[in-house]
Amino acid sequence: MLKGISSLICADLLWVLRSMGHGDNLALVDRNFPAHSVAAKTVYGKPIQIAGSDTTDAASAILQLMPLDFFVESSVQHMQVVGEPDAVLDVHKDLLQVCNESNSGPDADKPVVMQSIERFEFYRAATQSFAVVQTAEDRPYGCFILKKGVVFD
Amino acid sequence: MLKGISSLICADLLWVLRSMGHGDNLALVDRNFPAHSVAAKTVYGKPIQIAGSDTTDAASAILQLMPLDFFVESSVQHMQVVGEPDAVLDVHKDLLQVCNESNSGPDADKPVVMQSIERFEFYRAATQSFAVVQTAEDRPYGCFILKKGVVFD
Repeated sequence: MLKGISSLICADLLWVLRSMGHGDNLALVDRNFPAHSVAAKTVYGKPIQIAGSDTTDAASAILQLMPLDFFVESSVQHMQVVGEPDAVLDVHKDLLQVCNESNSGPDADKPVVMQSIERFEFYRAATQSFAVVQTAEDRPYGCFILKKGVVFD
Repeated sequence: MLKGISSLICADLLWVLRSMGHGDNLALVDRNFPAHSVAAKTVYGKPIQIAGSDTTDAASAILQLMPLDFFVESSVQHMQVVGEPDAVLDVHKDLLQVCNESNSGPDADKPVVMQSIERFEFYRAATQSFAVVQTAEDRPYGCFILKKGVVFD
């Protein structure tokens, strides 16, 4: 345990978050996501498990440390509901709220923009991530890609 | 880079600090210390380098994250000056000041106690550490062992 860092953030995840640079992506996914097969193609090469946490709490812990990117229109993307590409579920709304609550620094007044990615396109995008973090999220489509930003001070 | 964490703390050091538990020791040493040969016998197995920092600044960054142990009489030890076992140099005083400044939590009112260890005994103690962190400290005898404590909240 470390002072000021959630116990949800294990040593391997700390290593990943610190190793990521500006523009690197982190996939934060639910319990049904094919985390191992997708993570095998990422920079880190294997998934990091946060057992016993949903994506909302996991994101809150991660975003206390990791800034989101404001050099792009959208720094957060979620997996689209199959057949309902415009649907925004509670799991997505909760994640967006956490993103905005954690937002600090010179971009604190800018709302975070979340976009969606079709399911199979999401898998492809996730393989391009730095790492895959799998939670115990039981709400469907609780799968996200977060783009790391810049620490200014 | 991560929010609220000094840029002196690299990903490998974050991994080490988070992996250490209560009572584990961290050796924080100067530029002349035999870091590689000693670290080879530690849990982590290789030294972590903080180039461009002295032990004072490195300790300040580390102790923002890592609590010291207050279950023991002394949670910090420094290498004794050869032939002057009672000498306390500026590099030791600076480290102790940083330890006290970083002290928080339920033991915040307790002063940190620093003891000394004879040089070759220090080497042996350092091999029992979790890891060795080597700085660019150029002041002699700038070598310390910090014992990790407990996060309460």
